[in-house]
Amino acid sequence: MNRTYISDALKAIDSTVKVQGFIENLRNSKAMAFIVLKDITGKLQITVEKADHPELVDTIDQLTPDSVITVVGKVMANDYVKMGGVEMVPSEIKIESIAAPLPIVRKAIAATKKKKAVERSSIDQRIDYRWVDLRTDENQLMFKAQSVMVNAMRQFLLNKNFIEIHTPKLIATASESGADVFKVDYFDRDAYLAQSPQFYKQMAMASGFERIFEVGPVFRAEKSFTSKHTTEFSGFDLEFSYIESYRDVMHMEEELLKAALQAVKDAYGDQIKETFGLEVVVPETPFPVVTLAELYKGLEEDFGYTVDESEKGDLTTDAERLSYEWVKKHYNHEFLFVTDYSAEKRAFYHMRDENGVPQGYDLIWRGVEITTGAQREHRYEVLKKQAEEKGLGEDVKFYLEFFEYGCPPHGGFGLGIDRLTMLLVGLGIKEAMFLFRGPNRLTP
Amino acid sequence: MNRTYISDALKAIDSTVKVQGFIENLRNSKAMAFIVLKDITGKLQITVEKADHPELVDTIDQLTPDSVITVVGKVMANDYVKMGGVEMVPSEIKIESIAAPLPIVRKAIAATKKKKAVERSSIDQRIDYRWVDLRTDENQLMFKAQSVMVNAMRQFLLNKNFIEIHTPKLIATASESGADVFKVDYFDRDAYLAQSPQFYKQMAMASGFERIFEVGPVFRAEKSFTSKHTTEFSGFDLEFSYIESYRDVMHMEEELLKAALQAVKDAYGDQIKETFGLEVVVPETPFPVVTLAELYKGLEEDFGYTVDESEKGDLTTDAERLSYEWVKKHYNHEFLFVTDYSAEKRAFYHMRDENGVPQGYDLIWRGVEITTGAQREHRYEVLKKQAEEKGLGEDVKFYLEFFEYGCPPHGGFGLGIDRLTMLLVGLGIKEAMFLFRGPNRLTP
Repeated sequence: MNRTYISDALKAIDSTVKVQGFIENLRNSKAMAFIVLKDITGKLQITVEKADHPELVDTIDQLTPDSVITVVGKVMANDYVKMGGVEMVPSEIKIESIAAPLPIVRKAIAATKKKKAVERSSIDQRIDYRWVDLRTDENQLMFKAQSVMVNAMRQFLLNKNFIEIHTPKLIATASESGADVFKVDYFDRDAYLAQSPQFYKQMAMASGFERIFEVGPVFRAEKSFTSKHTTEFSGFDLEFSYIESYRDVMHMEEELLKAALQAVKDAYGDQIKETFGLEVVVPETPFPVVTLAELYKGLEEDFGYTVDESEKGDLTTDAERLSYEWVKKHYNHEFLFVTDYSAEKRAFYHMRDENGVPQGYDLIWRGVEITTGAQREHRYEVLKKQAEEKGLGEDVKFYLEFFEYGCPPHGGFGLGIDRLTMLLVGLGIKEAMFLFRGPNRLTP
Repeated sequence: MNRTYISDALKAIDSTVKVQGFIENLRNSKAMAFIVLKDITGKLQITVEKADHPELVDTIDQLTPDSVITVVGKVMANDYVKMGGVEMVPSEIKIESIAAPLPIVRKAIAATKKKKAVERSSIDQRIDYRWVDLRTDENQLMFKAQSVMVNAMRQFLLNKNFIEIHTPKLIATASESGADVFKVDYFDRDAYLAQSPQFYKQMAMASGFERIFEVGPVFRAEKSFTSKHTTEFSGFDLEFSYIESYRDVMHMEEELLKAALQAVKDAYGDQIKETFGLEVVVPETPFPVVTLAELYKGLEEDFGYTVDESEKGDLTTDAERLSYEWVKKHYNHEFLFVTDYSAEKRAFYHMRDENGVPQGYDLIWRGVEITTGAQREHRYEVLKKQAEEKGLGEDVKFYLEFFEYGCPPHGGFGLGIDRLTMLLVGLGIKEAMFLFRGPNRLTP
């Protein structure tokens, strides 16, 4: 007999079907046993009157929470059952895998008259047993939504003639600067882990690929312990040629995010609302745009927020957070493009205008920076000079060569998939990653 | 004026359009200039009668091969022009980027009466300037086809309820065995680069994700110098739960590859035939299946190929290659599943039957192994025993824990995207990767 998903079984009243999943809940009393079986699509109550099924009793007595079983049975309507008014009366129960007592408490349990309350395990304890923690509805929903989001982003780009590429993560020199880069023993020499595919996606522009994107890990050897930093995350990077200005890059990004959020809303908007209490808002385009100077002015006017003049070339973390209040108030929007950063604070490869203003932007979503984008400097001599001004010589020599033999004007940006996911559901980065990596965290 | 792709410009006879691209060919004589402009979609001849356009002469004299230009002009039908009987008569030419003399010879140039033949640069020289090399029609076609192939594989799986996940590449212990693993300086300790997402995709099964896939880099610290090995490549890995046997895994893989090759054939079959001289064959399913012992018997009967009894637990490289002749002869097929390997030669996590035979397979395409797949051992005690038999203790302890708290039966396989690409177009691995990585190759 083929397996039936529980979501389908719930509709198959009076049919006999086979379901498979984890035991989410188990009540085994003298006369009756109630099993809540969960698979990736839903939950089903399995009800056994032991007197009617003596042959199942032995098996049922072996079961533990989170064990995996296969059940064949008849689906019945029963108004007294909470779970959709449906239960299954089994004819066969097969044990696939017995779970040992669970090492973590996934959710706090409220006190009852007989039992004390049980605290939820800390996020670090839960990560120690991440595979047990990932079985919750919340976590499975989060990764199903992430999968839909990333697929929507890919389809959006493929429909616009982008090519997906795969660039190496092992590189010969510490890119951009030696700091924050992991060193690798590479046979009899050193290699480094790419901090971003930046240089190689620009290489693809010099290769005439015109429009490319890449989804892959990026590595940051930063000793940051915040709710949004990690040493390894999944980057979604793109780059495209023959742009007129960085405004084309901004336009591409806002349309991309709109498509992504539309897809997530269509597939899981209601569930996300119900589970995480957050609306999936499909943003209006164009997104609001503000220069950094205007934003600081606005934050001062609206919230009395001031910073020292010396800090105004970049966005402070507080200003980043406050900018969400500002953009909600003035534009009723969750996204905000900020432009006109100081050249000192931006990468050497950002193109600058005749006044030295970098032709790029940051994008803030719900008060957190999610992207740096820019038109790139594709003119070899100008780029070389900008690299030298930042004191970058030998390390970027190989990169500068990409621009010596013809290269179209181009621009692009990068997004962190994990950060998008985290903001989508309102969690911290540790909870939003399949497996978090930090300075003190390499396991499981 | 918006940019027009050259493939569209070729159809826009008598229109004035803007095109942008690299100069593939340039002939600049006293009275006339001919430019072959190439973009990602095609090629267009631009013809300038200098007497008619004195204002363009200065610009044209600066042009070099592979420079990037923007051209506005009128598209005209002209039967004398080779390239589709179309040429453009420009009214504006703008230089975007001037190329220095090219450092490599991408294609051999035959001798003429006046000039000696020019040899093609070696693959290693071409990789030194990979971005110049990637501009050829062959290379661009290869990566466009790869992008289509990988997308088709993803869509096939997403339609079957697979979730795409992203697992860490930085791991705490050398997986499977200490050999062939890159070591990373991770703050004040050592980390390693994942040789495959094997353990984590199985962790996703223990997490109840049921069906997952991942596309990401895998790292192999092997000092191999063959035409198919590399130290970093893009893996396409999947794993799914509630299978009945490894035959379910084989079935999933053959349908996946059929869908992938169908998509490639639809999009680029003709171009691949024309450019690489290779037919894209959409395979019939089910693929032929043979046990390892039967295959050795067949190779001896058909080709007189013999190996020592001690080698018969695994497939030798010669047998792998010869198996293509065998499967063509007996099944008129390009793919061959080989089963019943020796347990000694297979990973400890492959499930074994009651006779100790691993419940898995290799898949050979065009005489090259592209996959190892299997049903996995999900029973904690059995798995632990199999690990111990292989002398694996501490290193896989974290992995064994995945199976202690309930885990469905499951199986899966992995494919190398680069190897698939290489076989699709009949090239070696160095030529089939965006950027090859080998023991002596970390640049560009």
